[in-house]
Amino acid sequence: MEYRFADRMSRVPESFLEELFRVSATPGVISFAGGLPSAAMIDVAGIADAARAVLEEEGRAALQYSTTDGYLPLREYIADRYRRRLGIPADPAEIQIVNGSQQCLDLVAKIFLDPGDCVGMERPGYLGAIEAFSLYEPVVRAVPLEDDGPDLDLFEALVRQHDPKFFYGIPNSQNPSGRTYSQEKRRAIADILDGTGTLFYEDDAFGDLFFDGKPRLPVKSYLPEQTILSGSFSKVVAPGMRIGWVYAPAPILEQFNVVKQAADLHSNFLCQKILHRYLIAHDLDDHLRRVTERYGRNCRLICDLLDDLFPDSMTHTTPEGGMFLMAFLPPGVSAMDVFREGVRQGVAVLPAVPFCVDGGGDDAVRLNFSAADEDAIAEGMHRLAAVVRGLA
Amino acid sequence: MEYRFADRMSRVPESFLEELFRVSATPGVISFAGGLPSAAMIDVAGIADAARAVLEEEGRAALQYSTTDGYLPLREYIADRYRRRLGIPADPAEIQIVNGSQQCLDLVAKIFLDPGDCVGMERPGYLGAIEAFSLYEPVVRAVPLEDDGPDLDLFEALVRQHDPKFFYGIPNSQNPSGRTYSQEKRRAIADILDGTGTLFYEDDAFGDLFFDGKPRLPVKSYLPEQTILSGSFSKVVAPGMRIGWVYAPAPILEQFNVVKQAADLHSNFLCQKILHRYLIAHDLDDHLRRVTERYGRNCRLICDLLDDLFPDSMTHTTPEGGMFLMAFLPPGVSAMDVFREGVRQGVAVLPAVPFCVDGGGDDAVRLNFSAADEDAIAEGMHRLAAVVRGLA
Repeated sequence: MEYRFADRMSRVPESFLEELFRVSATPGVISFAGGLPSAAMIDVAGIADAARAVLEEEGRAALQYSTTDGYLPLREYIADRYRRRLGIPADPAEIQIVNGSQQCLDLVAKIFLDPGDCVGMERPGYLGAIEAFSLYEPVVRAVPLEDDGPDLDLFEALVRQHDPKFFYGIPNSQNPSGRTYSQEKRRAIADILDGTGTLFYEDDAFGDLFFDGKPRLPVKSYLPEQTILSGSFSKVVAPGMRIGWVYAPAPILEQFNVVKQAADLHSNFLCQKILHRYLIAHDLDDHLRRVTERYGRNCRLICDLLDDLFPDSMTHTTPEGGMFLMAFLPPGVSAMDVFREGVRQGVAVLPAVPFCVDGGGDDAVRLNFSAADEDAIAEGMHRLAAVVRGLA
Repeated sequence: MEYRFADRMSRVPESFLEELFRVSATPGVISFAGGLPSAAMIDVAGIADAARAVLEEEGRAALQYSTTDGYLPLREYIADRYRRRLGIPADPAEIQIVNGSQQCLDLVAKIFLDPGDCVGMERPGYLGAIEAFSLYEPVVRAVPLEDDGPDLDLFEALVRQHDPKFFYGIPNSQNPSGRTYSQEKRRAIADILDGTGTLFYEDDAFGDLFFDGKPRLPVKSYLPEQTILSGSFSKVVAPGMRIGWVYAPAPILEQFNVVKQAADLHSNFLCQKILHRYLIAHDLDDHLRRVTERYGRNCRLICDLLDDLFPDSMTHTTPEGGMFLMAFLPPGVSAMDVFREGVRQGVAVLPAVPFCVDGGGDDAVRLNFSAADEDAIAEGMHRLAAVVRGLA
């Protein structure tokens, strides 16, 4: 039969994410295309200990239904960490647990977007956000992302002229570019938004992954009542548990609770309890020092190989943290061609094309530096250099 | 500041579910209002063994990102169970893992509903479905549910006159009424829908909980290409893992995959693996015999006490399975009054009001018989009888 799908289903851009996860899993392909944290950074033994304790001591409660807002001790841990690390007076009542940051993208869009509403985001901007938002049929307008944050003139023009419901950005080690907003630009963004009807949706999936270990103050600290901040344990503990959170003003969180309940009642309670046990039994900052030391080394290696092996006309971003950087191809070389030819030659990269809501992006590729180890990186970058030189 | 929420947020009915979970947890209150499976039916030790094995033998994989469709061996188990139990030729490729049945409600609505589209459902109908659907701004039309299924004349009139995108129903031990569709009505529903543009959305959260242990053939078996069937492990293994599934024709599943990915990338992978380990190491039917023996005994006890302790003018449904029954109050007694007065006297019930999209429901209450044990049931029903007699 002919199925009568909703109009919104025709608005979804062709997705690369699922294909990516599959390509990443093809034997023999060295992948810079995915977004997996290093398997070596997952403390399996520590999580196994936490799981054993939860199931032995409070298994019956952990396996029952729970409340929509999430496990209170976990929300207290998150609020406490904001207070200690960033000096932000976060309250557990302002925090809601979600199934990873991705669910926050869906639910924020659901709360705020009527069809035709304007949403602002970075160009290039996070693909998963574009997919989540598009299902609510907004008009998405992008502001070019410079090395130190969005182009402020264009950002201000967007806010003044198009009155977006919110601007979505990743100030810390942005996906896909690896760029980090300067503190000056964070303050300027807060100043521009202050008093307007536009919220800042601050996705902070990578704020714990700065190579220098130093936190950056979020836009939320300059504009608390107008900022929705989301975080995730996927990149710092383990993605397979699907646990993230949103930290937002109470009136927004109240609506968030309504849509979260309608979406899936509550997040996995067993894993909320396991994660909390794990966090209170371990020093997360200690763990993160090991992770960022590794990611920083991998990142420097890729940057050095980009400088050494590739045509001089190529440039790249120089991340301070996170899991991604962006390389700009020689003039005339298509990122889609590099993607396709790369897979044939055993190396996967991700073109910037699907990260650009208004066209473009065929001049750059995103490279992940968290998943592979140094030997694979060296081999993969040699393969990629051959691909690019072959196409240049 | 004034937050500018989407229009859909004003369409959500006042929710009782979250309040219910809280009332259920008040010390001293005997609750028939919630929907918790018996804590005693959760095989904590079995799940702990499965968790230990997964984390020891494949912890690194279980804690990583995974694919949107869900863990293939788990989908194979589900498909195989359909084949063995019901003789339905289910294929794992037609099954997608979700975060409990509730997520399926949200995502089916997302795939199919434009604002103003018609949706059909039972009166009374499942509250969680009303909440999930309402966020997509449909016109929801209800068909009275009789003891053996929906009123067929009104069902047919709804389909012919209003052309709903889908009709949502729970043929097995419906929530809130506890009623089960007869096979005749299932076939008749399939006949009426066949060749129309209306799908049947068959929520089968309770099909494993018939007291006689015998499966009933789903509408899906009569109308495979036009039925979306959802199932859940929440009521048969453990709700805290939030794992359910949808079994649907391939073109629908393809769209489902798109919205699932945008919603949260994939369901908790660690718990998918733990659940699968648990299922292959245990005889689920054996476990279910113990659960349904208990639920059947509790149900009969409540029915007997309704007959013995309450005014003669009260009637009730007589479930063949599931976790709920419905009691119809004496003329002139308000279910909302029984709810409020009951909480004061230490017994919680759920009025049928929020289950009725088009008014009514103040003449009946839903009683859960899975959560409490026999002593608590007896004491709770005595308290409830006093409340009802006091109001009659």
